Amino acid sequence: MKPWKTLSRHTILEHSKYLTVENHEIELPDGTIIPDWPWIITPDFVNVIAVSYEGKFLCFRQTKYAIEGVTIAPVGGYIEDNEDPLVAAKRELLEETGYEASQWIHLGSFCLMPNRNKAIGHSYLARDAKYVKPPDSDDLEEQELLLLDQNELEKILLQGEIKVSSWANTVALALLRLKSKEG
Amino acid sequence: MKPWKTLSRHTILEHSKYLTVENHEIELPDGTIIPDWPWIITPDFVNVIAVSYEGKFLCFRQTKYAIEGVTIAPVGGYIEDNEDPLVAAKRELLEETGYEASQWIHLGSFCLMPNRNKAIGHSYLARDAKYVKPPDSDDLEEQELLLLDQNELEKILLQGEIKVSSWANTVALALLRLKSKEG
Repeated sequence: MKPWKTLSRHTILEHSKYLTVENHEIELPDGTIIPDWPWIITPDFVNVIAVSYEGKFLCFRQTKYAIEGVTIAPVGGYIEDNEDPLVAAKRELLEETGYEASQWIHLGSFCLMPNRNKAIGHSYLARDAKYVKPPDSDDLEEQELLLLDQNELEKILLQGEIKVSSWANTVALALLRLKSKEG
Repeated sequence: MKPWKTLSRHTILEHSKYLTVENHEIELPDGTIIPDWPWIITPDFVNVIAVSYEGKFLCFRQTKYAIEGVTIAPVGGYIEDNEDPLVAAKRELLEETGYEASQWIHLGSFCLMPNRNKAIGHSYLARDAKYVKPPDSDDLEEQELLLLDQNELEKILLQGEIKVSSWANTVALALLRLKSKEG
């Protein structure tokens, strides 16, 4: 299986550190040329589903600009320049919840838009989390911290209340992994 | 919890049916104004994890432009204008694999980018799938159909070989749901 070739690329929108758009000229394996393939550049990010040493999962009830109503969300945020994903994950957990975790499991690293965006979301399960200090979040949204049992979290997930695919994926992978260890 | 208000919006890039970018002026609940929030418009899509009446899960091994190497993928594609998501899911399954399924379970509908994109991916589990005619896909990528046992699929998922969050989420939710019915 051959990858597509990028013949040329040029920037068509430079908005901010949150968004740049390029136009790519692409050659397919059969020689077909696509002259105007849009390519979206957005920052990499992390998602963390943390579980406390008492077995409580840390989630937020929050609003987001692109979402109708409220959603349940794991911890998450953008990776800073040159920051290691695991360092970003630990930083976000501490900033948003005030918890630190001793055991970190990488659940996978995933692309959002496989056709036109290379941004990667790194998903983690953080176990044995303990509250160490008050949270200090720079998030713009209103949010409320919830401490959920595993069964409650699975019910919320399967009912579609975690409304973002990268978030639901992080929680679903953590639950599958925990079940496969129990089984 | 109060949502953010859109005070004004204007188009800053009109690329094609695959991408429009707007600039939004936003008011937060505390009165703060953000004058330049980028907003990305891309098409809604469906993802389908189908399982045959013999218990084999239908996946592709394929390349995608934004992904390094190969990835395992469920069936999926863009929803056409005014098309119902379930109709799109059935169409994509038939076009890409030549299978039809008698039992369709909606696993959820998810946002890709909760800050700046309202595109929704609708996830389905299609059960009791049967081969009815040769596939007729308009996909541009090279791909190879795989028929996987449930254990093989779970192993592939947990090893991170499904490299797109909406795809991995669809498969993980299907496996969790099948396990919770078994359990």
